[in-house]
Amino acid sequence: MTALDALVARIAGPDPALAEVARRRLDSLTKPPGSLGRLEELAIRVVVSAGTPRPRIAAPVIFTLAGDHGVAAQGVSAYPQAVTGQMVENFARGGAAVNALARLVGARVVVADLGVAGAASTHPSIVVRRIADGTRPITDGPAMTRAQARAAIEAGAELVEQAAPDCVGTGEMGIGNTTAASALTAALTRADPAAVTGRGTGVDDHGWTRKVAAVRRALAVNRPDPADPLGVLAALGGLEIAGLVGVVLAGAARRAPVVLDGFIATAAALVAVRLAPPAAGYLIAAHRSAEPGHARLLAALGLTPYLDLGMRLGEGTGAALGIALVRAALACYEDMATFKDAGVSERLE
Amino acid sequence: MTALDALVARIAGPDPALAEVARRRLDSLTKPPGSLGRLEELAIRVVVSAGTPRPRIAAPVIFTLAGDHGVAAQGVSAYPQAVTGQMVENFARGGAAVNALARLVGARVVVADLGVAGAASTHPSIVVRRIADGTRPITDGPAMTRAQARAAIEAGAELVEQAAPDCVGTGEMGIGNTTAASALTAALTRADPAAVTGRGTGVDDHGWTRKVAAVRRALAVNRPDPADPLGVLAALGGLEIAGLVGVVLAGAARRAPVVLDGFIATAAALVAVRLAPPAAGYLIAAHRSAEPGHARLLAALGLTPYLDLGMRLGEGTGAALGIALVRAALACYEDMATFKDAGVSERLE
Repeated sequence: MTALDALVARIAGPDPALAEVARRRLDSLTKPPGSLGRLEELAIRVVVSAGTPRPRIAAPVIFTLAGDHGVAAQGVSAYPQAVTGQMVENFARGGAAVNALARLVGARVVVADLGVAGAASTHPSIVVRRIADGTRPITDGPAMTRAQARAAIEAGAELVEQAAPDCVGTGEMGIGNTTAASALTAALTRADPAAVTGRGTGVDDHGWTRKVAAVRRALAVNRPDPADPLGVLAALGGLEIAGLVGVVLAGAARRAPVVLDGFIATAAALVAVRLAPPAAGYLIAAHRSAEPGHARLLAALGLTPYLDLGMRLGEGTGAALGIALVRAALACYEDMATFKDAGVSERLE
Repeated sequence: MTALDALVARIAGPDPALAEVARRRLDSLTKPPGSLGRLEELAIRVVVSAGTPRPRIAAPVIFTLAGDHGVAAQGVSAYPQAVTGQMVENFARGGAAVNALARLVGARVVVADLGVAGAASTHPSIVVRRIADGTRPITDGPAMTRAQARAAIEAGAELVEQAAPDCVGTGEMGIGNTTAASALTAALTRADPAAVTGRGTGVDDHGWTRKVAAVRRALAVNRPDPADPLGVLAALGGLEIAGLVGVVLAGAARRAPVVLDGFIATAAALVAVRLAPPAAGYLIAAHRSAEPGHARLLAALGLTPYLDLGMRLGEGTGAALGIALVRAALACYEDMATFKDAGVSERLE
């Protein structure tokens, strides 16, 4: 039994009986039933995930994993590959959007190098778990070996175990990784590549055409089998995406709500759920990305995002806002007075 | 010149030149241009409102104003009128949803009694600015006199002057006030009452039919003139709604972004903008309420809300979440590194 098999075996579905307990508490609070809308649904989701009627979110952590992509050499991104490593340094120094938002919402950011091309950063706050020096081009064959994909998943899971969060956020950085996520989406949901490929960081029409062609070629060359999620991930994924699969699985295994960022993180989540279906019950879709493939992934996972702000940055920025909403839902759930305690009249019948 | 006239005269439109300054700064930060989606638009809106390229939100205040409505006696609400005063006590003790959310987002809540029926609360943290002992039924004639409406507006404005916020949130409590807001919406936007009347705190079909009938009768009896916003407000409004008109005007006068809650607060904002059109530039629609009339008001104000969570509680709960988004937008705007400072490569051309 591999470490991955053991991790998958530890994931139990959440306890649906707690939903009724949470609903009763919500209806006892001084507000008309249901009047907090989706914040109430979110509170219930957190209660059910955590497995306790009074969950606390005291130590949320956003895992921002980085890796490079061989396919980036094919002109699929508006930015040069060097930006992956440069942004990892920026994360480490606290200068990126995810840092600004994580500080605001009281979440820690764990930055990990799963396979950034070139020399590893020496910044002490970057966790170095390099599985390879970037992936191989998905247009020529598999991005990674199965062993590498498994090792990256296990590395991601270990990050979660070490950080011991009670709420997990997912984030990523990797020039070229919307191309990988589009390929994963096309393979796992049997979608047409053109329908699930977007502009990423902002490629022009020519770049978009190259992206779609790269995804088509990657599918033709690798012939991924949707019934073999590890094989699909190894063929088309990125090292940081594989790491996020591990983050999702480990979050579910420790009953932490897993707040998904956008397109790439949700692609990782779909791989995770294909490996371990009960993990689906721990997922929270923070926001709807501007990337067109995201909707397809959300539908496959049965998730409706809470925010729709046209964001398309990644890094964990959407997850940070999602964690703020989780905190808001729990603040109401935990801190409001009940009708009885406050002496407020209940509704007329 | 009345105090209201003087207030209106103080409101200048925001400086559109600052939008370009803010856009340039956003594009210098380490992210693809526009990739933070509507958070970028929100940051620009705050910069333009505040009238400075580097605004700070250090002291946001949510003004939760309460008043009772004569029309409540006609079975238009799912809750008895006594709940208004009971909830005011709950606000004062910190037990309501707006308190829980305001604590989370670091906003102060100012609770004011503009005209709750019955004796005034003795709780020291309630600001008592009672203009009347509730309004008269809008189905029989005007809810207030013009003098009362003006006095309530001025009282709301004084609350803002005293609290000196750099960001204003609006909230309200008043059993029956969705009926008043529906009547205001119908009058100001010339909408059919049935299209802008919802379930409020949760009335059943019979209650909804009574609400629509009450709105129709209020319009027939009062014949409000949309060209006379103070007259419309006096005829159909509530004391807390009039107070919020003053909160909006005073916020705009001090160049504070005004974060609107839901349906009722937005009705107050439309009255404010009809009185002082430049106030429109300071408004931020936090969320889309589940109330059907809200969309009509938002369209009249040209606002697109940031959140759509099915909330319909009022109190300032949506405003609190909106303030969290304002903080998120400013956190990115203020705290991110630039491409130059971080040594990150800019996009390929």
